[in-house]
Amino acid sequence: MPEPFELSVAESASSIRRRELSSVELVESLLNRIDALEPKLKAWVYLDRESVLSEAQEKQSALDSGIELGPLHGVPIGLKDIYHNAGIPTTACSKIYADFVPDYDATTVALLKRAGAIMLGKTVTTEFACMDPSRTINPWNPVHTPGGSSSGSAVAVAARMCSGALGSQTVGSVLRPAAYNGIVGFKPTFGRVSRHGVVPVSWSLDTVGWLVRTVEDAALLLQVMVGPDPKDPVASRETSPNYLEALVGPTASRIGLIRQFFYDHADVETRRHVDEVAERLRGAGATIEEVPLPDSMATAFDDQQTIMAVEGAAFHQPMFEQRAGDYQPKLREMIGRGLATDAATYSRALERRRQFITDMELLSERVDVLLSPSTPTPPLADLTNTGNPLFQGPWTSCGLPAISIPSVIAESGLPLGVQLIAAPFAEARLLAAASWSEAALNFQSLPPVD
Amino acid sequence: MPEPFELSVAESASSIRRRELSSVELVESLLNRIDALEPKLKAWVYLDRESVLSEAQEKQSALDSGIELGPLHGVPIGLKDIYHNAGIPTTACSKIYADFVPDYDATTVALLKRAGAIMLGKTVTTEFACMDPSRTINPWNPVHTPGGSSSGSAVAVAARMCSGALGSQTVGSVLRPAAYNGIVGFKPTFGRVSRHGVVPVSWSLDTVGWLVRTVEDAALLLQVMVGPDPKDPVASRETSPNYLEALVGPTASRIGLIRQFFYDHADVETRRHVDEVAERLRGAGATIEEVPLPDSMATAFDDQQTIMAVEGAAFHQPMFEQRAGDYQPKLREMIGRGLATDAATYSRALERRRQFITDMELLSERVDVLLSPSTPTPPLADLTNTGNPLFQGPWTSCGLPAISIPSVIAESGLPLGVQLIAAPFAEARLLAAASWSEAALNFQSLPPVD
Repeated sequence: MPEPFELSVAESASSIRRRELSSVELVESLLNRIDALEPKLKAWVYLDRESVLSEAQEKQSALDSGIELGPLHGVPIGLKDIYHNAGIPTTACSKIYADFVPDYDATTVALLKRAGAIMLGKTVTTEFACMDPSRTINPWNPVHTPGGSSSGSAVAVAARMCSGALGSQTVGSVLRPAAYNGIVGFKPTFGRVSRHGVVPVSWSLDTVGWLVRTVEDAALLLQVMVGPDPKDPVASRETSPNYLEALVGPTASRIGLIRQFFYDHADVETRRHVDEVAERLRGAGATIEEVPLPDSMATAFDDQQTIMAVEGAAFHQPMFEQRAGDYQPKLREMIGRGLATDAATYSRALERRRQFITDMELLSERVDVLLSPSTPTPPLADLTNTGNPLFQGPWTSCGLPAISIPSVIAESGLPLGVQLIAAPFAEARLLAAASWSEAALNFQSLPPVD
Repeated sequence: MPEPFELSVAESASSIRRRELSSVELVESLLNRIDALEPKLKAWVYLDRESVLSEAQEKQSALDSGIELGPLHGVPIGLKDIYHNAGIPTTACSKIYADFVPDYDATTVALLKRAGAIMLGKTVTTEFACMDPSRTINPWNPVHTPGGSSSGSAVAVAARMCSGALGSQTVGSVLRPAAYNGIVGFKPTFGRVSRHGVVPVSWSLDTVGWLVRTVEDAALLLQVMVGPDPKDPVASRETSPNYLEALVGPTASRIGLIRQFFYDHADVETRRHVDEVAERLRGAGATIEEVPLPDSMATAFDDQQTIMAVEGAAFHQPMFEQRAGDYQPKLREMIGRGLATDAATYSRALERRRQFITDMELLSERVDVLLSPSTPTPPLADLTNTGNPLFQGPWTSCGLPAISIPSVIAESGLPLGVQLIAAPFAEARLLAAASWSEAALNFQSLPPVD
């Protein structure tokens, strides 16, 4: 019998539903885990033990009375500290928002609550979900970066302090920390899930995502949070299928391996490993073909940096004009750079990105999923930055849904992951292929924190 | 038996197809018409009589041999002088492009040719499809503006020098000149028809459109030119229905009348007239309900001006830095303003526009079509500008498909029109409602040029 903290989101939910586990037992197990590991890992910024326990008791009482709120009834979920949870501070781990307490829930938070989930607490984010490293520690090795910006969510899930946590990705802030911590990171198509009530970085790039330990959990959370939202002007009204059904009996896929660009920037071990992953998947029945990137890839990353700086600056400008000294150096530099950018330069970056989106959409439709390394290297022994977003950024820029699944432990003892990417709004196909690949790769390692 | 120049696009095509008219007779009739009216109306910038006649002969010979290229076989179409027609000058009526001869066809031009159409010639545009008035004369009254920027296309069609001509709309450049000249102006959903090979104004606003005299012709041209195009990064891959079938037996619609904002800026006669149009349509069986505009309408027009200036400046910058003095004053001012805009200001305008798009899409889905006046007044006796784009601009900014149909002759003797607007990619519904409304309004007046 596993300890409750070891369970995935789906396992926790079904154990509670089947009365094999009470929500209170689960929360107590997680809080004990947090008590043991948090001093070392520093993944949390807000946690109200009494309130969470009391909510678990309420959820359990409801279930005992026959009231099951939804598919996450009684399951605790972590929130990156940029998600608004009414009455709870949302600091974005910044001096600027230090005293901010929202009076409403982010749409995603409201949907999690409606599904019966318990908001366990707020996880550490880099300042305003940008580039300055946070205090969070990689559970695989404390001198290696845990990644960012969703570092707290990734580490909390990797160290089994919770089974699922929301993050967000403007460049690579979900998939990179997922890969660096040996877990699953998922971001849906741009516009698929509402961003209302999430502190923004860049309005035309920001995508909510989540950190989990299984592909099934990625699908379950999408099922709960998917849907149109007029409060987020970029939210799509595309219809959504049943993602959990899509996982049933997933079969081998046509996979487009992208070596171009990625292999130019990846280390030898990563390149060799991704080739091995491709061989493993081929052996399990997938069709692997190498696909070329469009010419518009050439400027995609630099353009994304311009867009992020400008849109970040547009949001922060009023606060920055008052309190520039209260920003950390990398974000201060970015806002300054964004404010100094002329509109024509930004317009040309947006126009080139539009071509990149079209080209990538066409490429994504040639196969079931695309495959690339998640990161150029395993997490490095360098705490001055949160790692290289070069490999995750393109998928955020073009808006395609993407997932990072852990694939191996590198020679350094740190995890490596691979990314799968699909066509717009093809999350069902992506999750099916990821679930099949997860089984084929059978990654079982845990960080050495016990 | 009408003169050939009097025929619509559809009538011309079917007369040629049924051998009741030869393409040569049609071209000769139109060239005679142009010879008679062009000195007064100044609608054309390029016309090669011999080449066009020779092409008509080829088309007629092909037909005589049993080869029918497509639904526009042998029908001459005019092109606003920003469309690339391989081997023919595209000057954008500017000094800058005075010597430019493209070596490829715009996608729309290629599709017209594939459908059997003859490119009759290039119509006058305001310089670079912007705000400085052109030399073209309104056929209803020479001291009143013909509108812009598609002034030559509108006047050529109104004066029956051709039955259809391409235009383009960044703010109001198709629907306004259509209304000012007593004809039909149509622009599809943003992204519905390719802009590849059209000299740009503003990449995120530019929409190709066309000037015709009947709603059937608007549908026929859409049928010929609709479709995805990877060469235009904003071109949609949405599937398209048969637009001509949509016109068969159109029935009364649920129409959402927009008085708010439009009635605040329209003159008394226009307001009274649109109310009369609504009553007429109600009498013919439509359901009319007044609908409110979203709050995001408040900044939509100003934001559109910012976006147009910035994106226009981004395109013109390299030429402008060399030859600012070769630009006309209104465009020179706009480019200067665009170059002086900071990126954060433009980003905020884009973000507000994104909210406006979402709000307008939701509004458009509450009814079959929206109804508003096309212009605040009939064309004014003022040749220093091309008229007020305030009423057409919102539909370009939010990307909804829109059509202006002529509705009455105002007290000034100049025409007035009404706009119908539909949900994204609902051109079939829009054209059906417009066809039904066209029959109910039964506008038959012709400009006094004969």
